[in-house]
Amino acid sequence: MNDSPKTGGIIGILGGGQLGRMLSISAARLGFRSHIFDPSPSPPAADVAHSVTCATYHDEAALCQFAKAVDVITYEFENIPTSALDTLEKFCPIQPGREALRVSQDRVLEKEFLNNLGLKTAPYAPIETIYDLKNAIKTIGVPAILKTRRFGYDGKGQTLVKMHGDAEKAFKAMQGKASVLEGLVEFTHEVSVIGARNVNGDVACFDPGENVHRNGILHTTTVPARLNASERTDAILLTAKIMNKLEYVGVMGVELFVTSDGLIVNEIAPRVHNSGHWTQDACVVDQFEQHIRAVLGWPLGDATRHTNIVMENLVGFDVKRAIELAGTKNVAVHLYGKAKINAGRKMGHFNRILT
Amino acid sequence: MNDSPKTGGIIGILGGGQLGRMLSISAARLGFRSHIFDPSPSPPAADVAHSVTCATYHDEAALCQFAKAVDVITYEFENIPTSALDTLEKFCPIQPGREALRVSQDRVLEKEFLNNLGLKTAPYAPIETIYDLKNAIKTIGVPAILKTRRFGYDGKGQTLVKMHGDAEKAFKAMQGKASVLEGLVEFTHEVSVIGARNVNGDVACFDPGENVHRNGILHTTTVPARLNASERTDAILLTAKIMNKLEYVGVMGVELFVTSDGLIVNEIAPRVHNSGHWTQDACVVDQFEQHIRAVLGWPLGDATRHTNIVMENLVGFDVKRAIELAGTKNVAVHLYGKAKINAGRKMGHFNRILT
Repeated sequence: MNDSPKTGGIIGILGGGQLGRMLSISAARLGFRSHIFDPSPSPPAADVAHSVTCATYHDEAALCQFAKAVDVITYEFENIPTSALDTLEKFCPIQPGREALRVSQDRVLEKEFLNNLGLKTAPYAPIETIYDLKNAIKTIGVPAILKTRRFGYDGKGQTLVKMHGDAEKAFKAMQGKASVLEGLVEFTHEVSVIGARNVNGDVACFDPGENVHRNGILHTTTVPARLNASERTDAILLTAKIMNKLEYVGVMGVELFVTSDGLIVNEIAPRVHNSGHWTQDACVVDQFEQHIRAVLGWPLGDATRHTNIVMENLVGFDVKRAIELAGTKNVAVHLYGKAKINAGRKMGHFNRILT
Repeated sequence: MNDSPKTGGIIGILGGGQLGRMLSISAARLGFRSHIFDPSPSPPAADVAHSVTCATYHDEAALCQFAKAVDVITYEFENIPTSALDTLEKFCPIQPGREALRVSQDRVLEKEFLNNLGLKTAPYAPIETIYDLKNAIKTIGVPAILKTRRFGYDGKGQTLVKMHGDAEKAFKAMQGKASVLEGLVEFTHEVSVIGARNVNGDVACFDPGENVHRNGILHTTTVPARLNASERTDAILLTAKIMNKLEYVGVMGVELFVTSDGLIVNEIAPRVHNSGHWTQDACVVDQFEQHIRAVLGWPLGDATRHTNIVMENLVGFDVKRAIELAGTKNVAVHLYGKAKINAGRKMGHFNRILT
């Protein structure tokens, strides 16, 4: 295991998308260099990284070399193959740790973990066979959502089960992958908490934001979220509880449904989170720097919010609005440097200070 | 001449120090890549740049190749050799333009320019011979400062003339370089304005900051500066006047002495400026992004200040305070990733929000 790099070390980042890019920029602001590991040849983070390794997560030699070249390893996405983690860990500490990855990589394990902590989730049942699914539909009711247990994001790998007769079709859509049936929760809105915890167990949470999705992709996050005082406290305390139980080190995103019956945990992400991008322009220290600080064993930064704000994603051709938006009062534009525009691809975002 | 890169182009930056580094980071935030040109092999900006050319400003082949590889050229320091500019300009536009460089590279031309604009400067006289100096001392009086006309920064290339008898010694200290004698101005404090102007002639100025120096190096900038309403207006109007006269494109720093007789211009810098680092944590768009926007022909950003703030430089071994400072409320730390600590070397800075 390498020494903890207190100043001027190299941070290894698995994944070179926009999250890796913004992590790199924050690392640079604190005087650190970044080394990106990504299977694609010139990912967005490469433009601001000190070094880049282009290799797959099954290339053991490349993983070893990468792990030896850096002082600490972190990641921008949770779906890293276990075998890659095993290889990397022999040479270099990985933060956030394995337990957080194990739990968040699998929707069933995640829900078990949350329920064991005394937190509420949607009703759920693991599905392996068509008989499991038919039984689960009886218990949980319809409508419900069938999701792959692993590797889903932005609404991918999900199918709606509207009525009992949809079972066969939904089961086929999973293409044999282990899945989970989740009951639909009646919620008024969704909020998320971006929390951080460092090695010393210090915890700092940003103010909860309120999320609106379009086509399964986050559209806006508005802060403050509509929450009463006790909901706000609950949201922050349950985030701290999750991080403490996992002995978590880094930034975590916790998505919550607000219901008349209290807060229900939708999912947790062991990484910086799209719904935390507003912190870049409303806080002295944003989620990216907070993550880097936690991973390095630095003190956490001041998570106080100094303004009301709304973040909006620039998805696909929305990015054409960037220059016009840049000329608008109180707007900060953030672009990811992606050359190719695809429908549904996150190209950038902007933060609008609300006065 | 290359096309203006509206999105996703490459910005060439002459000089890879901390200013180039922070310009690179801002370019990345807007989706642009940076190509750094610097004579040293791994300058601070290289860590966050897409490409780096390591060559001297007299290496014509390297300059040509660099200029062909980028969409627009800017710089982090004003003392670029004229021959290098001539070479670069054949292939790629340089912003801010040649006139701003010509004027700011020479203390005599700069003072002439400012006086012709109707602005006040310290009394001055160009010095080529010991007789010039002796005559100038009679006219301007003592104490006065003898400075090299070119290539001075952070108090370097300056010598104090306390009494008439100091003439010979001071003249020798200039080692035959063309110089200028400047009368000492009785001022209560120094302020600076960070202004920006884009191709369309739009101008935006940040609020003036108040500067305190230690050993000839900027120590702190506090915003707002102590200025009455008319001084504040004067400071901003004269900055706009300078930029308009030069048909300036980019960010400029204007240092001003506050006297009982109004504002006196100390010097102008055709680039982002140390006394503008506070904008990183007190404005939606900071001086670095503002410069990149201006250079790209983007609309200028909102220069409104949302908080009172003080910036303090971390010079030499001061940088050892960084981690402790990072754990302090309302503090944002910025480090430049310089491996070697030297006394007098700017290693980083921090901004403290004043509440």
